Amino acid sequence: MNYEVKRLVVNYKTLEEFKQFKEYGIQELSMLEDLQDNIIENDSESPFYGIYYGDKLVARMSLYKIESAYDKYFEPSEGYLELWKLEVLPHYKGKGLGSALVEYAKTFNLPVKTNGRQQSSGFWEKMGFEPVSYVEERDRGENPYVWYPQGVSEQRLA
Amino acid sequence: MNYEVKRLVVNYKTLEEFKQFKEYGIQELSMLEDLQDNIIENDSESPFYGIYYGDKLVARMSLYKIESAYDKYFEPSEGYLELWKLEVLPHYKGKGLGSALVEYAKTFNLPVKTNGRQQSSGFWEKMGFEPVSYVEERDRGENPYVWYPQGVSEQRLA
Repeated sequence: MNYEVKRLVVNYKTLEEFKQFKEYGIQELSMLEDLQDNIIENDSESPFYGIYYGDKLVARMSLYKIESAYDKYFEPSEGYLELWKLEVLPHYKGKGLGSALVEYAKTFNLPVKTNGRQQSSGFWEKMGFEPVSYVEERDRGENPYVWYPQGVSEQRLA
Repeated sequence: MNYEVKRLVVNYKTLEEFKQFKEYGIQELSMLEDLQDNIIENDSESPFYGIYYGDKLVARMSLYKIESAYDKYFEPSEGYLELWKLEVLPHYKGKGLGSALVEYAKTFNLPVKTNGRQQSSGFWEKMGFEPVSYVEERDRGENPYVWYPQGVSEQRLA
């Protein structure tokens, strides 16, 4: 089944829908304040992508581009995407919506890095991700799982 | 009630006990490999602190010192502690073990930063922590809650 993944815009409807997701936090509150204070415009681009069921947002993720100067995971280092807040609403799980979002993230053909949450390693491995070699100073308790596009490999740290 | 908080040493018993915690991940697997490969010695210091009930580890957290050169949260900037993997085993919740660990983290008299997990803001605020002003480039989807010792405040970003 193919799902349409949309880049989400920041407006009051989107921010209201975000409240349904468990990982609603400081990031979303900050977006709401910026909208209220006219620091960002209505319908401006957000780092979030999502899948709608009819009019209802039922799955989302955030993608944030890390520039190569800050890339400590990949080589050659041409920047990568950090994927976070991947979440499917409870009644919509098991339909492949999470996988569809992750597959979409891969289409940019940049390496992807995520912090695999508890007991999610099976999911990430199914999606073609691999755990990194853990480095305390860099990874700080995270569970980094990464996806390498063709020609990219793990960065050897000095 | 006062609980004794101990710095945990890395050995096979500790690493076996870590498997009871939901946030067991790449960090713990890496410690196990390092022990097996003799890269680290048995009973070497770990970044983890915990509380025992008799002989059984029932609560833990990790504290990692961030040097001032990498401090983007506090000023004056004299380094801070990053607290992660705070977790109490299910049967031992509601007894103040989590609070005891956090209070222990404060005794170093350095600022403390954590990534508040979903719906934990009430707990962190009760512990005297505050949410930061969210900055996408720095916080990348995290929910940073911080504790300021006397004389320390939020860093103003350029």
